[in-house]
Amino acid sequence: MVEALHVAADAGRAGDVPVGAVLLDAAGHLLARAGNRVEADTDPTAHAEMLVLRAGAARMGSPRLVGCTLVVTLEPCAMCAQAIALARVARLVFGAYDPKGGGVEHGARVFEQPTCHHRPEVVGGLRETEAGALLRTFFQDLRERRP
Amino acid sequence: MVEALHVAADAGRAGDVPVGAVLLDAAGHLLARAGNRVEADTDPTAHAEMLVLRAGAARMGSPRLVGCTLVVTLEPCAMCAQAIALARVARLVFGAYDPKGGGVEHGARVFEQPTCHHRPEVVGGLRETEAGALLRTFFQDLRERRP
Repeated sequence: MVEALHVAADAGRAGDVPVGAVLLDAAGHLLARAGNRVEADTDPTAHAEMLVLRAGAARMGSPRLVGCTLVVTLEPCAMCAQAIALARVARLVFGAYDPKGGGVEHGARVFEQPTCHHRPEVVGGLRETEAGALLRTFFQDLRERRP
Repeated sequence: MVEALHVAADAGRAGDVPVGAVLLDAAGHLLARAGNRVEADTDPTAHAEMLVLRAGAARMGSPRLVGCTLVVTLEPCAMCAQAIALARVARLVFGAYDPKGGGVEHGARVFEQPTCHHRPEVVGGLRETEAGALLRTFFQDLRERRP
């Protein structure tokens, strides 16, 4: 999570929403790390979670990331939650809860649906104060910069 | 939809689940077309819809596809539905309904959630018989090939 917070801060400095993710293999070794790159890559799907899933699958040589753990600073949205299920990720650890846009504990609650065919173990709220503070500062700065 | 059915059939012949998508700009011109490439690209996120959103955004030079229409042969899953919302797509047209994995009219019902901040106009069931037949034949062949 410390590493995910680092890449989140980097993403924020680059002008993207400061969310960061890392993907670990079954032995706990780092497979991929990424921050949000929606603006940087001009890609609406380039959330941090999607980027580590894609990079991890390429590295593993399989679209199924059996046994892997995804760590992310913010509760995933419905897109990322469903991608985590499709990739058969074993464990999801996230930082801040996201009542406005989350898709795990809020809104779509993707893993609780009968249309979800793989449910990872979920741990929420890890270092949530730091993860949330990063986001609050980012949006506060953004509002202050507006004319 | 005819074009989406063509790329779906191509995806099936290449060993991926036969789903195809096209993205049209506000004037109705083709921005991108793609079939599922999960197996071909070793990418769990490479659903047809995600590929046309990414290609379309790159072509438009913006992660927001304002005014665009996405046409896909199967009801999008929660990942693709949320990506369509994030990309601000104006209109979604899909073929077959997907009670087992869909995220628009089934399961997560992404666009109906308070966590969804953009709801496209949705038209479902266009050429659903053809779109569904493609999928049924694919999975039937797959079962028959198993020992």
